[in-house]
Amino acid sequence: MSLAGDYDSANIFAKILRGEAPCVKIFEDDNVLAFMDIFPQSQGHCLVIPKDTTARNLMEFPADRLGVLFAAVQKLSNAVVKALSCDGVIVTQFNGAPAGQTVFHLHVHVIPRFANLPLQPHHGGKPADMAVLREQASRIAAAL
Amino acid sequence: MSLAGDYDSANIFAKILRGEAPCVKIFEDDNVLAFMDIFPQSQGHCLVIPKDTTARNLMEFPADRLGVLFAAVQKLSNAVVKALSCDGVIVTQFNGAPAGQTVFHLHVHVIPRFANLPLQPHHGGKPADMAVLREQASRIAAAL
Repeated sequence: MSLAGDYDSANIFAKILRGEAPCVKIFEDDNVLAFMDIFPQSQGHCLVIPKDTTARNLMEFPADRLGVLFAAVQKLSNAVVKALSCDGVIVTQFNGAPAGQTVFHLHVHVIPRFANLPLQPHHGGKPADMAVLREQASRIAAAL
Repeated sequence: MSLAGDYDSANIFAKILRGEAPCVKIFEDDNVLAFMDIFPQSQGHCLVIPKDTTARNLMEFPADRLGVLFAAVQKLSNAVVKALSCDGVIVTQFNGAPAGQTVFHLHVHVIPRFANLPLQPHHGGKPADMAVLREQASRIAAAL
């Protein structure tokens, strides 16, 4: 059963949290880190991950920390709307490989939507240009 | 801008909450109602909505109530895994029509995923058979 298993501390988000891998950061506090998805499905696609957890997915995360995590998701959603003037926002979270999960550290996608612009496939393309991501992250951070 | 606007108290989820429209209920407490999606993208596709709110989307919802809402989402996610032996769960939430939102009362989708079974398009098919939904809701409720 693909939802079963142990946390692998070599996953890329764990490495980012330990400073062993880079990310294009938007904001960070004691509880969460928000950064740009390097395989964006749209302009401004970003992620929120909880710190100090070995939860691979939503089901494994302590219920009493959900409010803090989703307050950060809400804050980021408001910021992308303000920064990018998008027409909608998809908030989505995958649990298990058959659901589309590729990194097994709990994470929430915040995906700006623009009228008449299709979403790119999940992990369907090439990594984004880092300079473009840094510019978007800077605008989103300024709108927090 | 499609994210702007006022809450329309004639939306179908508001009618369900007032008892003016039916739903296939899974669970309910003072804060939330969970019920089956009648246009399921997979077996067991269900929804969680907050009560006593005029938030159309995540951005409008009081931050201090997010913990309670997502604790219910987590509880429902655990229950679908237990009840349906699914291989994954997508948790998703649409804000604004360009993001796929069709009912403008904040709601969170809990969509079981089964290996090798494709998702149905969102609102792409006919409404589900109510007897089938009632049977699924009963199994999910028993696993809470």
